[in-house]
Amino acid sequence: MDQLSHRKADARLRLFKVDGTPLSEACVTIDQTGHRFLFGCGAFDAVALMKTQDEAQRAFLQERMGKWLRLFNYGTLPFYWGRYEPEEGKTAYAETIAAAKWLRDKGVQVKGHPLCWHTVCAPWLMQYSNEEILQRQLDRIRRDVTAYKGVIDMWDVINEVVIMPVFDKYDNAVTRICKDLGRIRLVKEVFAAAKESNPDAVLLINDFNTSVSYEILLEGLLEAGVPISAIGIQSHQHQGYWGLEKLNDVLSRFSRFGLPIHFTENTLISGEIMPPHIVDLNDWQVDSWPSTPEGEERQAREISEMYSVLFAHPLVEAITTWDFNDGCWLKAPSGFVHEDNSEKPAYYALDQLIHGTWETHEKLVTDSEGYLSFTGFKGDYAVSSEFGTAVFALNEPLNRELRLNT
Amino acid sequence: MDQLSHRKADARLRLFKVDGTPLSEACVTIDQTGHRFLFGCGAFDAVALMKTQDEAQRAFLQERMGKWLRLFNYGTLPFYWGRYEPEEGKTAYAETIAAAKWLRDKGVQVKGHPLCWHTVCAPWLMQYSNEEILQRQLDRIRRDVTAYKGVIDMWDVINEVVIMPVFDKYDNAVTRICKDLGRIRLVKEVFAAAKESNPDAVLLINDFNTSVSYEILLEGLLEAGVPISAIGIQSHQHQGYWGLEKLNDVLSRFSRFGLPIHFTENTLISGEIMPPHIVDLNDWQVDSWPSTPEGEERQAREISEMYSVLFAHPLVEAITTWDFNDGCWLKAPSGFVHEDNSEKPAYYALDQLIHGTWETHEKLVTDSEGYLSFTGFKGDYAVSSEFGTAVFALNEPLNRELRLNT
Repeated sequence: MDQLSHRKADARLRLFKVDGTPLSEACVTIDQTGHRFLFGCGAFDAVALMKTQDEAQRAFLQERMGKWLRLFNYGTLPFYWGRYEPEEGKTAYAETIAAAKWLRDKGVQVKGHPLCWHTVCAPWLMQYSNEEILQRQLDRIRRDVTAYKGVIDMWDVINEVVIMPVFDKYDNAVTRICKDLGRIRLVKEVFAAAKESNPDAVLLINDFNTSVSYEILLEGLLEAGVPISAIGIQSHQHQGYWGLEKLNDVLSRFSRFGLPIHFTENTLISGEIMPPHIVDLNDWQVDSWPSTPEGEERQAREISEMYSVLFAHPLVEAITTWDFNDGCWLKAPSGFVHEDNSEKPAYYALDQLIHGTWETHEKLVTDSEGYLSFTGFKGDYAVSSEFGTAVFALNEPLNRELRLNT
Repeated sequence: MDQLSHRKADARLRLFKVDGTPLSEACVTIDQTGHRFLFGCGAFDAVALMKTQDEAQRAFLQERMGKWLRLFNYGTLPFYWGRYEPEEGKTAYAETIAAAKWLRDKGVQVKGHPLCWHTVCAPWLMQYSNEEILQRQLDRIRRDVTAYKGVIDMWDVINEVVIMPVFDKYDNAVTRICKDLGRIRLVKEVFAAAKESNPDAVLLINDFNTSVSYEILLEGLLEAGVPISAIGIQSHQHQGYWGLEKLNDVLSRFSRFGLPIHFTENTLISGEIMPPHIVDLNDWQVDSWPSTPEGEERQAREISEMYSVLFAHPLVEAITTWDFNDGCWLKAPSGFVHEDNSEKPAYYALDQLIHGTWETHEKLVTDSEGYLSFTGFKGDYAVSSEFGTAVFALNEPLNRELRLNT
């Protein structure tokens, strides 16, 4: 049995020449040009690229995003409240919408992250009462989801709810209201605000906690009717690769809801792993965290294995690796490219999967009536022959007539 | 400030003699005869006492229950489905109702434990489909809650839900339906069945898991409108006393729901403690588990401290120690008495709290109009003088006239 059959569809095409006659007994090339599956990565540098005034910096970021775009069709843009709106009313809308549109124009689906979170929260909220904080939280969601509608239609609505009301590293406005309302009431409210602002958006809940606590939270939320489109699972593996056993366990436990699963924040590093005694990854503060040759080989192997397992799972619709380049969060060697943009083995390994193993390219011959059939990975396609080309999408069994354009 | 003020009430009484004249300027004795707070213990031996045909055994159990009754006003009776109904339709109703009535006649409030649990589940259920199991589970609840109404009006409706659907030690009917329906749906159903059968009953959910998972489960259940009367918390401390920090942490996390809290299954042992690597306490199988002199002193100290913290907490309404005597569950030295019924230091320590520190006994003089005032622990009282006696209950501020009977 084909373990990837859920990723593929059968196509039967009938091709016509420009003059309307069937393209009979002709050699054609079928090339997949895009994936339905969401291969994602953090795209924060797209915002930096929009903002920079420095020519060298612009060229550097353009090179980086060029390599980014070769791999990915899906990007996460930052909406951390404390950075997006450092002063009440003064937002980073201009550069963020520019980055989102720039990505969309290149065929990249964009997700905003996150609309509600206790970390990187806006400090100016702290002056308000809990009722006022909640009001501002909901207003913020309505404002941003509405403003980006049509450009960003996918949101991490709320982040890390399991720990949210008991988060005690520092006082913050969102922990306050979550403590007050309880987790389920707060999630209900923020999802309702997002849903009313963009009813067709894909709305995610996202957590690093993959224990039974998150399962039970999801049960409670679904029972309470919260319109969760997909379950977001973080997998920052600075302390070492989960391995197949944990990966399959997480998949099996979270698939029982029948909802799509997004791996939203994946990290596999190419250096020494963080010691196991660290509980909050943010507590690991180092001056430098070098990438090593052995680490890079290991990272490439782990990425290939993990992506292969996730791609084979019918409910997984998206995998996002968090850092595109080394030296971002925690200075970790967590990227597909080094800080100087040079590719690491993991880059080539994932490229091989996305644009090799999992991409359909065929040479076929039409029959006397102009028909051809093939089975291909879901996504966008071009068909071409010496008589011209045409494009089509293959997302379900397809039976279609196409006229080639020259 | 009096840390126990929530356990007390002010009384102002006006006493009259049998002839109707005020009892003026007379010496009276106020004696608390019962507690409003539920001091509980497993009372499984009451069932054994009802069943035994052996005279020596009867005398032994009578001695044991006599010591039990000196301490406790609240007892838990067993309703484990696999034992209560070992063959479908053949129940232990006769001896269980007899035990419940025997306890009630002695002023003991009785709780049934549990109506739904994956452990000690009825094996004959396994032949049925999940729909049929659920139907039988709900029928069983309706049958038993109805049959005992007026005698048992307090139930552990469902036990250990956090682990229930992922319990994998052995296949059983209740795990099957919990996996099928999800935790919240199953809890909803079993509570609804209990509630419709006895709308005034006190209905508990009970768990040994005191982590954030149980909190989130409770959030989800309350949000789903499940009529939970009180939160049940198990505290089997075979692996060592929790200590004040954990105890206060659990109290603080579970008190935010504002519901009454019952410590439903407490164990503190007087022997060597179980090693920390044991995850399921049932895995610790020993031939004997002796009580030691030092262990008995420690157990007494820990019981005094733990009961004192719980009695001081405004939301705690009940504490049940699981085993009255040593050598029951896991053969642990977990009792207030040894296997031969001789009292351990913990027995005297708890007796000192219940019938000493926390019990009101006063000698007062009425004024010229027959009035007297006092503040006492909530519960039942007798007032007596050379002119006779009267009884009254003090559960809230009381202003009452009483005629003494001779």
